[in-house]
Amino acid sequence: MRAVDIIMDKRSGKELSREELEFLIGGYTAGEIPDYQISAWAMAVFFRGMSSAETAALTGVMLRSGSSISLSGISGPFVDKHSTGGVGDKTSLILAPLIASLGIRVPMMSGRALGHTGGTLDKLEAIPGYRTSLTAEEFRRIIAKDGFAMTGQTRDIVPADRLLYALRDVTATVESIPLITASILSKKAAEGAEALVFDVKFGSGAFMKDAADGEKLARSLVDTGTAMGMRICALLTDMNEPLGNMAGNFLEVEESLDCLEGKGPADLMEVTLALAARMAVMGGKAEDAEEGRRLCEEALASGKPRELFLSNISSQGGDVKRFLELRSSWRSPVSGEIRAEQSGCIARIDAWKVGHAGTMLGVGRNRTGDAVSPTAGVRFHKKGGAQVKAGDLIMTVWAGDEAGLRESLPQLAEAVEYAPSAPGPRQLILKEIV
Amino acid sequence: MRAVDIIMDKRSGKELSREELEFLIGGYTAGEIPDYQISAWAMAVFFRGMSSAETAALTGVMLRSGSSISLSGISGPFVDKHSTGGVGDKTSLILAPLIASLGIRVPMMSGRALGHTGGTLDKLEAIPGYRTSLTAEEFRRIIAKDGFAMTGQTRDIVPADRLLYALRDVTATVESIPLITASILSKKAAEGAEALVFDVKFGSGAFMKDAADGEKLARSLVDTGTAMGMRICALLTDMNEPLGNMAGNFLEVEESLDCLEGKGPADLMEVTLALAARMAVMGGKAEDAEEGRRLCEEALASGKPRELFLSNISSQGGDVKRFLELRSSWRSPVSGEIRAEQSGCIARIDAWKVGHAGTMLGVGRNRTGDAVSPTAGVRFHKKGGAQVKAGDLIMTVWAGDEAGLRESLPQLAEAVEYAPSAPGPRQLILKEIV
Repeated sequence: MRAVDIIMDKRSGKELSREELEFLIGGYTAGEIPDYQISAWAMAVFFRGMSSAETAALTGVMLRSGSSISLSGISGPFVDKHSTGGVGDKTSLILAPLIASLGIRVPMMSGRALGHTGGTLDKLEAIPGYRTSLTAEEFRRIIAKDGFAMTGQTRDIVPADRLLYALRDVTATVESIPLITASILSKKAAEGAEALVFDVKFGSGAFMKDAADGEKLARSLVDTGTAMGMRICALLTDMNEPLGNMAGNFLEVEESLDCLEGKGPADLMEVTLALAARMAVMGGKAEDAEEGRRLCEEALASGKPRELFLSNISSQGGDVKRFLELRSSWRSPVSGEIRAEQSGCIARIDAWKVGHAGTMLGVGRNRTGDAVSPTAGVRFHKKGGAQVKAGDLIMTVWAGDEAGLRESLPQLAEAVEYAPSAPGPRQLILKEIV
Repeated sequence: MRAVDIIMDKRSGKELSREELEFLIGGYTAGEIPDYQISAWAMAVFFRGMSSAETAALTGVMLRSGSSISLSGISGPFVDKHSTGGVGDKTSLILAPLIASLGIRVPMMSGRALGHTGGTLDKLEAIPGYRTSLTAEEFRRIIAKDGFAMTGQTRDIVPADRLLYALRDVTATVESIPLITASILSKKAAEGAEALVFDVKFGSGAFMKDAADGEKLARSLVDTGTAMGMRICALLTDMNEPLGNMAGNFLEVEESLDCLEGKGPADLMEVTLALAARMAVMGGKAEDAEEGRRLCEEALASGKPRELFLSNISSQGGDVKRFLELRSSWRSPVSGEIRAEQSGCIARIDAWKVGHAGTMLGVGRNRTGDAVSPTAGVRFHKKGGAQVKAGDLIMTVWAGDEAGLRESLPQLAEAVEYAPSAPGPRQLILKEIV
């Protein structure tokens, strides 16, 4: 077998075999196949795509490049959720304790903010003391105790993906649906999830700008995961506006607690409950999404998810008392406002522009390794569909310094789109893909 | 400027600017841009192509990566010829002295055999003592004396092409017409040619298997060369059968001398004179190809090209006396025969199979750096269109040892294709592209 022949076959549109992918990607991870062959292959994949069987084979090869988390000894079922990333998307923080309260285990490995999108780990780390680098043993122990745990990926989870992603990032080969699919699924499989609900976002604040591309990715994730023997479904959800009324690390933890206390904003609750309903079904606690949703609403009303959330903070080293004291008051020192420039109706608040302004405020980061601020961010007083009079308060903005505020305000003002009349109600959940 | 953005633009089908190509390829040659970005870019070029202006810009960038041969001080005109490679193609050995005899200078830098195709340098080195690694000064001096010189490329001619070609070879990005165009033209421009006649071959023994692809390459070479200010034309010629009756290094030198003595086979003379006629026009010695051809036929009859050929052997260190003594007798020790398996008509002798058998005999090489045999090879007693009776001699085969002979004979026997009736006359010169 020669790498050049495998690249040539992919260039011609042929389906590669499991053995060929093992030779290529296994060899790459072992340092035997050079990166210049892998980047040429990745570009050929960008143009030629991959079959479902081929994507599943690649996912398997990547999965086997490292070790997997063992959850044996803990009773299941294990269900996880994965979002393709957005702005103001804090559903993971609400879903994990909510689903755990139904008796389903949620082993959650999350990522960090990058570019305009936020990261679950950065949000959790805004809680004083909270640790997101659990050992495998701590991860297991906390899942057994609280029903869920939230951590970052360890170095030995899918090393092939770390290598391949870094290479794709600098060779313009990120935007390939089969490569994205294999990257996501190999990590989720390594984390021990047996069943998975995907939140595939589309719109300005998402990775996939239009719904058709989002649906292609959702279809690829479901088909490939199913081919690998996992139970999978996906919701295609709208990310043209930030989700909820808060965008910022500590701000989003606060809003998650609001949701667990029954005080969450409607759009955020709608997406969260739609995902939660599917997780309940996947975990065998409900027959269908409708029953799943009812169970989740009952659970929220019981207060159990809130208790588990606070218990988990404690389990992962966080200071619950201090967290509750800081609630509603811990904000970056410099603040500003965005007020309506005209009277009329807000068409939408552009999620991409908010996310981009967020990196200026220190909510997110432009490069891996940059520090983020726990307390910077934006609160939305009005969102798409709201009637405003010129001068009405639309956003409150918190920044670490005057420079960050000055830089972000024009972006945030531009994010507000006006319409002559009220737009129709937004369809947040576009489609379910099973 | 970032390499990843340039790759992304090419991936989207955009035309890259001269500055972007300079950044990418200049940076690569300087060791500043890594090979994994260049291979991804090359694969994107394979799928997206390049405009004429872009190809010309890339050629210019590659040309400027090294030094150029200076022929100042020698009176011109300078005209060169380049073949895209074939089997039995010894036209360069005949054309150089023929065109030099018209008072046109031919500065010829050639390559070596690789895969199934032969190489001019390997043929010349079959002449005892002949040196193909001339210094720039020797190259100039011999051109001034004999009107032509034949050498390999020096290390400082287009280093970007050496790097890029080696990378394309292992990343399945060789077969891209704009990349092939820039590779060929940058070297030819660096060698000091002002005018160029291309022999773009198509067919089983050529790089381009079908005429349509060959024509695309010819069109790209002519358009790009013209955009760079060179005078260029191309002939699209048939390489489904080996050219002439000899395939082998010393065998082909012998056949070249036959041609210079007026005893060349018809197909080889037809292609040679068609190329020669265009070179005469390019060099300003004839108004049109018809007049060019007449001039070349007159020159051959005068014996002057033969004299220049022998003079050049002497100038480049070869032993003319020994060469003429060895003529018609210097052959590898083991010989075999291919005889007609049936009575009827030969449709063709497949050039690719002959070339492939040639690598087994030691005429060519599978890998750069492998040694070749001067005296191994094949003589064709019959070719396509000939009537044969079962048992008639079709080929004599010379090999260095029994193993090489045994391995190659079945390939050579298979190369003979029979037809129930005589095929129509072959059209060797399909088209002229100007």
